[in-house]
Amino acid sequence: MSEAFDALREALLEAQAKLRDASDRALLIVISGVEGAGKGEVVNLLHHLLDARHVRTYGFGPPTEDERARPLLLRYLDRVPPRGTIGVFFGSYYADAMALGLEDGDASAFEHELALIRKIERMLAAERVTVLKLYLKLSKKEQKGRLEALARDPHTAWRVTAEDWALAAMHGRIQKVAERMIEATDAPHAPWNVIPAADARSRDRRVAKLVLEALETHVEPPSIPRVERAVPALEPLPPLAKLKNGEYKDELNALQERLARLLRSDAFTSAHSLVAVFEGMDAAGKGGAIRRVIDRLDARYYRVVRVAAPTEEERARPYLWRFHRQFPRRGHATIFDRSWYGRVLVERVEGFAAEAEWARAFDEIDVMEEELVRSGVIVVKFWLDVSPEEQLRRFEERARIPYKRFKLTDEDLRNREKRPLYLEAAAEMLARIDSAWAPFHRIPGDDKKAARLDVLRKLVAAVEARLREPSPAV
Amino acid sequence: MSEAFDALREALLEAQAKLRDASDRALLIVISGVEGAGKGEVVNLLHHLLDARHVRTYGFGPPTEDERARPLLLRYLDRVPPRGTIGVFFGSYYADAMALGLEDGDASAFEHELALIRKIERMLAAERVTVLKLYLKLSKKEQKGRLEALARDPHTAWRVTAEDWALAAMHGRIQKVAERMIEATDAPHAPWNVIPAADARSRDRRVAKLVLEALETHVEPPSIPRVERAVPALEPLPPLAKLKNGEYKDELNALQERLARLLRSDAFTSAHSLVAVFEGMDAAGKGGAIRRVIDRLDARYYRVVRVAAPTEEERARPYLWRFHRQFPRRGHATIFDRSWYGRVLVERVEGFAAEAEWARAFDEIDVMEEELVRSGVIVVKFWLDVSPEEQLRRFEERARIPYKRFKLTDEDLRNREKRPLYLEAAAEMLARIDSAWAPFHRIPGDDKKAARLDVLRKLVAAVEARLREPSPAV
Repeated sequence: MSEAFDALREALLEAQAKLRDASDRALLIVISGVEGAGKGEVVNLLHHLLDARHVRTYGFGPPTEDERARPLLLRYLDRVPPRGTIGVFFGSYYADAMALGLEDGDASAFEHELALIRKIERMLAAERVTVLKLYLKLSKKEQKGRLEALARDPHTAWRVTAEDWALAAMHGRIQKVAERMIEATDAPHAPWNVIPAADARSRDRRVAKLVLEALETHVEPPSIPRVERAVPALEPLPPLAKLKNGEYKDELNALQERLARLLRSDAFTSAHSLVAVFEGMDAAGKGGAIRRVIDRLDARYYRVVRVAAPTEEERARPYLWRFHRQFPRRGHATIFDRSWYGRVLVERVEGFAAEAEWARAFDEIDVMEEELVRSGVIVVKFWLDVSPEEQLRRFEERARIPYKRFKLTDEDLRNREKRPLYLEAAAEMLARIDSAWAPFHRIPGDDKKAARLDVLRKLVAAVEARLREPSPAV
Repeated sequence: MSEAFDALREALLEAQAKLRDASDRALLIVISGVEGAGKGEVVNLLHHLLDARHVRTYGFGPPTEDERARPLLLRYLDRVPPRGTIGVFFGSYYADAMALGLEDGDASAFEHELALIRKIERMLAAERVTVLKLYLKLSKKEQKGRLEALARDPHTAWRVTAEDWALAAMHGRIQKVAERMIEATDAPHAPWNVIPAADARSRDRRVAKLVLEALETHVEPPSIPRVERAVPALEPLPPLAKLKNGEYKDELNALQERLARLLRSDAFTSAHSLVAVFEGMDAAGKGGAIRRVIDRLDARYYRVVRVAAPTEEERARPYLWRFHRQFPRRGHATIFDRSWYGRVLVERVEGFAAEAEWARAFDEIDVMEEELVRSGVIVVKFWLDVSPEEQLRRFEERARIPYKRFKLTDEDLRNREKRPLYLEAAAEMLARIDSAWAPFHRIPGDDKKAARLDVLRKLVAAVEARLREPSPAV
């Protein structure tokens, strides 16, 4: 490395130290471009110029068995750098997009992917992850010359593969697809930088300067104005039909058995997983309903996640990251006792999230759930209602019964006073994220047994309906 | 679930709530036993009786691609429950041990595995993870009857596989191996409980009572008396040979090139990974040496880890857990800028770890490193010396040079005063964990350039030596 980079290195180290100290944002550098343009060299340069201890580089190849068992997008989102650090993606989600763009046939899958990337990068920007995207470019002639030079040098010949030559032969097509990709995903908060790469020295200087600029410039995240919507207040639901004597046990057993078999069926385990979300007022019966859902399931293939306060590692990442971590592998189920909907419920009502944060969550959640469903995950969401009278009765009962005592906290009683605010938040949530692909089921919870049967019925129906559909291309 | 369990459930929920509140220990329940004995039913029972939101069950099957890419033991250790929670292992490391015990030929691999398990469980106990081990037992006749009954019932027939029958045919041999396994790994802090499983009801009551007992009894971790050893003080090393003019650049380039090629060779990427550890006095030149090690490496296949204060999630786990997380996949390298040796260096000297904690770390680290090496990891450790005069000179230089300023902290200056204590701790560390499989290289650091060459030479030699050995059975 030449001495000419020394001044740049000093400035980069200073800027990196500031990023670390402030720890209020992260920098994600995405490296893309044609073969032979020196993507690997650029990544090595970054490690050389920066403090490599706080840079984490991921080279993404074909997805591994474990990566394939979960929605593919998660392998990227899981690795978004924590605030205060720098991440480098090499062979990123843009490589997946390019592969789609190069497929024959209609471009709808490619365009869908580009739209998804736009949404994801907007979310990242709002979460204070600056995305710096570099596309290393060579003309057809330059690429040929460069690959030949690499192949001639005994020190680098091993780096030139047959695949590189095959890709070089497609130079024109690749350039066309890359142009569309760049055009469609260029945004002020996540701009593309196309870098002529024929001269390694000027390429490297350009990259170093762009990284310095990204570290020094505070990019204002895109402001997403809150779309105010008139949302009708939640009308009380009509009570569920009264159960006849003995009806509960029999139907419960039958539904539990059916669910257990569905979740061990080949149709499910080969292509699907289940995410079931339970939200609702305190004491609406979420816990009891969840117990009936899991009662006959094989404990090795599901887990119940109770959403608690985020940990340090989670707080350093975008809001949804801590839920991503819990999403099941194919053939498994995760049951959420409260969920990401906390953002637009408790965090909104209690003021833990700023309005800008919870207001954009509607869209972010929608995007995430659509992507889950597209990857084969069955997403079923429940909102359990409970009348104020029945809620009070249950709180009083909890205070009396020893082993239920631990379920009653002061917070429960405080939250009760804010009931109208919670109902208003729930109304907006139900109106806005009750998507066709991940419907919200509202269940009257005053009659516990009837509510449990209703939950199980809807869950079984959702899984059965999905398994009847043609298999998704996962 | 019958009402007779209601009282037990109350007691279990109370005990579990206490475990959560205290968060000072974890319970790991290991389920083992013969096919048809109801291991799955017992796990489901636990989820039913406990608050399933704080129980995490892992069913371990054949290792996945990603699990195989790292030392196999890590898939268990990664999943040790955090303090305050309960973990259930189904098909645990005991299933691996049983498989080894059932292999034909000599029993040395089996016995090695059992010895390893003893050490791991002693470490877990010391880290306040109570291990409750359940072996569900059936006589040959009972097993046959039970499998036939399951196969007859249309609701359960699908659960009986051809493999179950094959295993049932080996009942006698399996029993013998299990007896040896139980005998060899039964310990006061991690006792085996052999449970007759022919009667499901009494099996379930027994399991529930054992779990309750484990939650309620505070098991004193095994006290491991510190073995005092006379350790000679660290004598200053003779300085490295002075480099001739121009010698540095040429040899550095040649060594970097050699290392880069070694780490991309088929011999390495197919069966090995590299863990390089850098320890040493402040300003001994660890950072500079690391930069020279990584200079020509492909950034996608290594990472530099700087050991910082543990996070919440890490503090809730055994000490070594946060390092396990960083161990590389096959074909990759992790370079540690400080490491688990902090336990017997800074944590010992500064009193962050109690004597009992750092004293047992010598053995724990030794076990971990041996297991890494056995799994194909190449472990190379460096201790960089620096004379007090040279150290002071470097501190003063750092204070002057702007981009080095951020490397100098008050802590550095304070640590300097404790030099004799650090040297004493280092002397004991070097004497005790300089194993044949993972040697510690002590490098005189006063001459930076000579030290960097020496580090690279030793690293290259260690990798080359390992690649010449016959491949391990990973």
